[in-house]
Amino acid sequence: MTSVDDVGLLAPVWAGTPVEAATGDRAFLRALLDAEAALARVQDAAAGGTVTAVARASGRFDARSLALRARAGGNPVIPLVADLTAAVAEVDAAHAEFVHRGATSQDILDTGLMLVAARALDLVLGDLERTVDALGPLAAEHRATPMPARTLTQHAVPTTFGLKAAGWRSLVLDAHERLVRVRASLPAQLGGAAGTLAAFGGAGPAPVGAYARELGLAEPQLPWHVLRTPVADLGAALAFCAGALGKIAADVLVLSRTEIGELAEGAGGGSSAMPHKSNPVRATLIASAARQVPASAAVLLGSLAAEDERPAGAWHAEWQPLREALRLTGGAAAAAVELCAGLVVRPDRMRANLELTGGLMLTERVAAALAPSLGREEALRTVAEASRRAAQEGADVFHVLARNEELPDLGPLADPCRYLGRAPALVDRALSRVRGPVGGTSPTRPSARDDGPRNQGDDAA
Amino acid sequence: MTSVDDVGLLAPVWAGTPVEAATGDRAFLRALLDAEAALARVQDAAAGGTVTAVARASGRFDARSLALRARAGGNPVIPLVADLTAAVAEVDAAHAEFVHRGATSQDILDTGLMLVAARALDLVLGDLERTVDALGPLAAEHRATPMPARTLTQHAVPTTFGLKAAGWRSLVLDAHERLVRVRASLPAQLGGAAGTLAAFGGAGPAPVGAYARELGLAEPQLPWHVLRTPVADLGAALAFCAGALGKIAADVLVLSRTEIGELAEGAGGGSSAMPHKSNPVRATLIASAARQVPASAAVLLGSLAAEDERPAGAWHAEWQPLREALRLTGGAAAAAVELCAGLVVRPDRMRANLELTGGLMLTERVAAALAPSLGREEALRTVAEASRRAAQEGADVFHVLARNEELPDLGPLADPCRYLGRAPALVDRALSRVRGPVGGTSPTRPSARDDGPRNQGDDAA
Amino acid sequence: MTSVDDVGLLAPVWAGTPVEAATGDRAFLRALLDAEAALARVQDAAAGGTVTAVARASGRFDARSLALRARAGGNPVIPLVADLTAAVAEVDAAHAEFVHRGATSQDILDTGLMLVAARALDLVLGDLERTVDALGPLAAEHRATPMPARTLTQHAVPTTFGLKAAGWRSLVLDAHERLVRVRASLPAQLGGAAGTLAAFGGAGPAPVGAYARELGLAEPQLPWHVLRTPVADLGAALAFCAGALGKIAADVLVLSRTEIGELAEGAGGGSSAMPHKSNPVRATLIASAARQVPASAAVLLGSLAAEDERPAGAWHAEWQPLREALRLTGGAAAAAVELCAGLVVRPDRMRANLELTGGLMLTERVAAALAPSLGREEALRTVAEASRRAAQEGADVFHVLARNEELPDLGPLADPCRYLGRAPALVDRALSRVRGPVGGTSPTRPSARDDGPRNQGDDAA
Amino acid sequence: MTSVDDVGLLAPVWAGTPVEAATGDRAFLRALLDAEAALARVQDAAAGGTVTAVARASGRFDARSLALRARAGGNPVIPLVADLTAAVAEVDAAHAEFVHRGATSQDILDTGLMLVAARALDLVLGDLERTVDALGPLAAEHRATPMPARTLTQHAVPTTFGLKAAGWRSLVLDAHERLVRVRASLPAQLGGAAGTLAAFGGAGPAPVGAYARELGLAEPQLPWHVLRTPVADLGAALAFCAGALGKIAADVLVLSRTEIGELAEGAGGGSSAMPHKSNPVRATLIASAARQVPASAAVLLGSLAAEDERPAGAWHAEWQPLREALRLTGGAAAAAVELCAGLVVRPDRMRANLELTGGLMLTERVAAALAPSLGREEALRTVAEASRRAAQEGADVFHVLARNEELPDLGPLADPCRYLGRAPALVDRALSRVRGPVGGTSPTRPSARDDGPRNQGDDAA
Repeated sequence: MTSVDDVGLLAPVWAGTPVEAATGDRAFLRALLDAEAALARVQDAAAGGTVTAVARASGRFDARSLALRARAGGNPVIPLVADLTAAVAEVDAAHAEFVHRGATSQDILDTGLMLVAARALDLVLGDLERTVDALGPLAAEHRATPMPARTLTQHAVPTTFGLKAAGWRSLVLDAHERLVRVRASLPAQLGGAAGTLAAFGGAGPAPVGAYARELGLAEPQLPWHVLRTPVADLGAALAFCAGALGKIAADVLVLSRTEIGELAEGAGGGSSAMPHKSNPVRATLIASAARQVPASAAVLLGSLAAEDERPAGAWHAEWQPLREALRLTGGAAAAAVELCAGLVVRPDRMRANLELTGGLMLTERVAAALAPSLGREEALRTVAEASRRAAQEGADVFHVLARNEELPDLGPLADPCRYLGRAPALVDRALSRVRGPVGGTSPTRPSARDDGPRNQGDDAA
Repeated sequence: MTSVDDVGLLAPVWAGTPVEAATGDRAFLRALLDAEAALARVQDAAAGGTVTAVARASGRFDARSLALRARAGGNPVIPLVADLTAAVAEVDAAHAEFVHRGATSQDILDTGLMLVAARALDLVLGDLERTVDALGPLAAEHRATPMPARTLTQHAVPTTFGLKAAGWRSLVLDAHERLVRVRASLPAQLGGAAGTLAAFGGAGPAPVGAYARELGLAEPQLPWHVLRTPVADLGAALAFCAGALGKIAADVLVLSRTEIGELAEGAGGGSSAMPHKSNPVRATLIASAARQVPASAAVLLGSLAAEDERPAGAWHAEWQPLREALRLTGGAAAAAVELCAGLVVRPDRMRANLELTGGLMLTERVAAALAPSLGREEALRTVAEASRRAAQEGADVFHVLARNEELPDLGPLADPCRYLGRAPALVDRALSRVRGPVGGTSPTRPSARDDGPRNQGDDAA
Repeated sequence: MTSVDDVGLLAPVWAGTPVEAATGDRAFLRALLDAEAALARVQDAAAGGTVTAVARASGRFDARSLALRARAGGNPVIPLVADLTAAVAEVDAAHAEFVHRGATSQDILDTGLMLVAARALDLVLGDLERTVDALGPLAAEHRATPMPARTLTQHAVPTTFGLKAAGWRSLVLDAHERLVRVRASLPAQLGGAAGTLAAFGGAGPAPVGAYARELGLAEPQLPWHVLRTPVADLGAALAFCAGALGKIAADVLVLSRTEIGELAEGAGGGSSAMPHKSNPVRATLIASAARQVPASAAVLLGSLAAEDERPAGAWHAEWQPLREALRLTGGAAAAAVELCAGLVVRPDRMRANLELTGGLMLTERVAAALAPSLGREEALRTVAEASRRAAQEGADVFHVLARNEELPDLGPLADPCRYLGRAPALVDRALSRVRGPVGGTSPTRPSARDDGPRNQGDDAA
Repeated sequence: MTSVDDVGLLAPVWAGTPVEAATGDRAFLRALLDAEAALARVQDAAAGGTVTAVARASGRFDARSLALRARAGGNPVIPLVADLTAAVAEVDAAHAEFVHRGATSQDILDTGLMLVAARALDLVLGDLERTVDALGPLAAEHRATPMPARTLTQHAVPTTFGLKAAGWRSLVLDAHERLVRVRASLPAQLGGAAGTLAAFGGAGPAPVGAYARELGLAEPQLPWHVLRTPVADLGAALAFCAGALGKIAADVLVLSRTEIGELAEGAGGGSSAMPHKSNPVRATLIASAARQVPASAAVLLGSLAAEDERPAGAWHAEWQPLREALRLTGGAAAAAVELCAGLVVRPDRMRANLELTGGLMLTERVAAALAPSLGREEALRTVAEASRRAAQEGADVFHVLARNEELPDLGPLADPCRYLGRAPALVDRALSRVRGPVGGTSPTRPSARDDGPRNQGDDAA
């Protein structure tokens, strides 16, 4: 470590994960050189071979030196072209003529960004798939495992842990779809000084398509120096993904609270002061990423509104936020795999918590049962009044209601495990959604088959 | 106007545009009532008819009163259900039993948000289409109209105004695609108290599909109370759209500067102090929107990470930013139609500006022409030195180069209008992209047809 | 309500609070007219009198019409000047010459923003003071009321509720200081067309100081059309305030969870589906504000980087985010007063929760007690091992430790109420901080008096 | 460079600047060790000496290893304490007992953040001072150098370059004040496991004050684990500073446009494609920073709303955005020094641009001169009509007005250099503001001395 190297000390969410290396300065330098080499190859086979060999020679180019010299012109490609040209010229002066031929710095830097994004997204997508693969069995196993649903922090009605896990899986599939779509569309950049391809001369086709194919990127319809769709799309999709994983983390953080204890991470994190601590550390790290990526996305989306054929600032403002969004999301995805694969589920604690409020979680059900005879308004009033009294007395609301002789016997409604609604059926439905390679949209379109899931949880769980 | 009404005084970008009314409190109240009415209709035809009739009775519900009473429970649906139930009961007490039956506040509020978003997006999409329709002919007409390309604020090489306009059109098409995709996926919300549909009882299918169809929304696979894909997608797509329009605005603001004068708005804006002013006011308003929407999107994307079955804050934080994002984008789209339809293009000013730098815009071309004989490095050095001297002397760089007797005759390269590269061909290619109803992705995928546009601008424009 | 009026339907956090009216379009129109009237008064007493009388005539000016006409020039002052001039001319044509004399639209609009901000901040400051006044006694009363401290969601060591409340109070005082500072610095704006005051002619002083005094605002050293310190400062201070209140809300939301139950709002919020619900609705609304204001602040801080003598977009992008930041913060402050004044504290639940983990919260203490004899590393290992065993067996960690005969008697350390550290003393210290009118900075500067609070909680609480 | 080190390749705005090293991972590791050493010293002189010596031993601690092990517990202090304890124990086992004694990870990490922030701010403040020192003479020299003021991109009225430079200086002074205030308040952190200082035992004072003094930081009134005033203040002040510098950059970018040419950077940046380019690269880099820091500030302000005694995510989300905000602002400040010290001002181009619009910039003045005889409305109409005609004919508006025989001779008003208003006097006034160590607020408070600057520019410049 020299005095300026960063090695991830402040970023436990991504330090040491594969996405870190895939997005580091060495990976960016590699991607810039890959772009230059491909550009030479598609213009001259022999020169391209030389440039490729020189570009791949390990240790030939010094990222730190390039970083320092980038300040003079505003980007690192300018010094890189100088170094690469000199290195190729040492091998074959004529071949050096083909280095960077026809291109501008932004062609190489943008292509490098896309290569790095593509490689990082492949890692993220793999981790999302592993997360989905962990959540599916969890949802299936607990499709009818009752637990309290909580709204505005308070117990609401019963639900099942399977439905919660199926919801997580659904969000991760949504994220996967969005990243797959963006991944497939990442284009190479090649426009020359101002996007007219003028320096490629008048004879024959411009080499954009061949260049893109060499690099495994999409061919753009137009040079996109100032049509920043790919960068904006990356920002939006990464923020979506971080948020989707953040939802899982938010729930795990609540449900692993000491008083709740319905979930725990497989191996909790320690503390420098308290030897007993077992913290939900993966959820914590994911949550920290979910707080940061939307801000990066706002910068990237804001860079769409850029002036001229190359803007003075908006382009330069994209690089670090895009890298950080890739890393934070990738680190969060890696943590999510571990979190979901190792998650400890405690049906006993869920059950115990269901009992905590003495029947209050069933007031919706009771009110609905009383509505036909009392009218809905009166039914709601009756149950609300009984709830208040139960809370005051510390009694079960069913006991309070039982004192009211005008009411029917409500006892059969008192089992929270028999008020799961369609939760198990919804789990089955959600699990029928499979991970598509270039998935459709998440909601089911209106169709003939609208009968929805039946209420398997009701008295039949 | 009562003392608290807002009427758009601080929002000239959207005041008076159709999207304003489509997203106003009255429109939201209408959408909430539409949701309640549809919910009743799919559960009981007769009661549904009554609820619908009452819900549609103009002036029956007081948005201000609902707003004030919303503070007690945190959302306006709670008092609305009370008012609607009472109003229906006045007509038919039995039918009042069907008001809000099985639902929770969030079902109605989220469905209302989606209805408003759908109606607003239809307006935005129409304006994007009109913008595309204005830009297409502009790009075609000026496919070979030369103008200076500018990078980092400085003249770079020649380009054509058509290529700029084609790029704008391409970005607007990208925005259109993204909004079409989101528009098609907007789902109804129906999950009951905590998303289990428990209150709909155990017999028969839940009415989610029918409810969605009644409202013209998509049927969700799962209740999405805490799976906020639709809201996050709206935020991202609206920020994209505002940014795409912001790119047009950024260019118009530069090119209509007094010293540049290549573009002007059809009818400029006035000033309270300076009678001569004709300001690019539509571009200004669009730019103001493009600065705001990414921040709203960041809030909406941040709300994905929400705890429990209904979060305490993250949900409530979505409503105003979503409305404002719709309005700002809608107002910007309306301004973009006017801007693009009325845009004044001044080829004479473009031509005059091309001459300003005495040939400096052609240094890339000259260096390329000299490279075969001098080698690229030496060619670049020679041209850079001549450029410096030309700038010092206020001379044309071609004159300076002509003094060097070792160089070939470079005069034929001095016409900027013959260094347009593939700009005209790129325009043709871009214009071949048509507005799809549910468009594909913007970049052309690698394909057999990769020969790209030929260099029609070179000596053949 | 006309079809476009907004009345707060989607903003329960501020609907109906005083800050809503203070920042509404009518209030802005009033402020714009106040600025015009003051400007006339300082230039001509008689004309100023007429302008003031006309400006104050209720109902004379139509905010909606101004909003619609604002679109043409980009701001509402242009049509307002026309209407005001016409109205004054009806009374006295000569006096109409003094309307807007020497000024530009931005002078009036910026001054109006500052007047509205000043009036809104006065409301916010009052509510912060009431919040401080509610928190002080709460902290004092509970200075030694033991409760679990929680870190990364898990029980850590004991603390006191008083220390938590004192921390809240400290943050609110910090917010108060920052807003007081900004409030005192809000300047009038007067620069003329481009900030040179040229239209005020060469004789005598420019009327900036008198104008500022008329309006109760500070006199700026320079026209600040593009020196946006006041707006940026407002954004930052409002986001700080919303965040400070958001901290209180975050804690209340955790501590009022059904399973924890240590706090409750005085009167909870209801539900449209579940009659038993008593939701922490004020905390929810505050939390929703805290999620939105930082995004508004980012827009306002971003507007500092604005080009020219009046920017095309950055200025226009400030108005709505500034208003919304004022409203959200003001609504949150109003909710915080209610929340803190009505907060229900349940020491019994705190005590019960302290017992939940069977001594685990005291592991730090035990390890420290064992360190002198075992060495710290070995002590930590011993306690961690006992903790693991206790968790497995469901036993109290002190029982597990007691089995180890090599250890001293640790029983006297087992009372969590005797491990409060300096919590009570810290409360006393924090309460010694008083609300200053233009407060100092929050941290105590290094000083002779550094002996800090003594450990009153230890065995002496 | 290992495969993961970052060396600034994507961050030309800060690569190689002093703030980069001051905020790098090595600097953070140094700061964490400084905090641990100070904590040991204030508890035991002898042990403190050993810990300090070990902590300072170069190369003893491996940042990369710490980063990787941080993932397990969520922060790098946990493994650092293990390594430091082991290293001290090798020297003196008894002294190892004092490592981290009484503290929690957050005490060390937060103190480290404040030390790094303090060191970085000292660099930023120095660069702001140098920027002010460069701008003062520039403003003085050009106090009466006429140039066009531009509003909404269009020529408005004349101003002076000195007034623009004085405005920049004023903003930088505002930034300096805000950072000085934050710098002075940065506190040490020491609270123990949950902020009660319990592990420091009951006898004697807690060592917070001594610890803060050892480190040159302020002593906090309360542990601020979840009272994040210092971090929020840093975020706000850094975004302010980046925005203030961004204003300078925005103006330089406009005024150095090829067509405008009123300013140029001392040594422009080059291009990889166009040998003639001399780009405003420092302004570009500053602009790129100004686009990013507000987003980081939004994350930091958002972290105020954090739950419990240590939040699960909000704390962890602060570290990287705070570092990046420090770096971006520091890099921008370093670039601003170079930019302002080397700025090339071209009064001839300013003068030429003033003539461009044939008198249109003086319409405000002409209308004011005609108002006494025609009435203001009629005067504005007359001038607007003449302006329109002049624009159509390409004529000077004074020539058009001269055709109207009913008007007085307006020729004497036609010199733009005699319509500078109070610009020179405002410059003098602004330059009277000196850089204070803990400066007051920027606007002048209302005072007896309100006569403002006289109109020295009018016919007397």
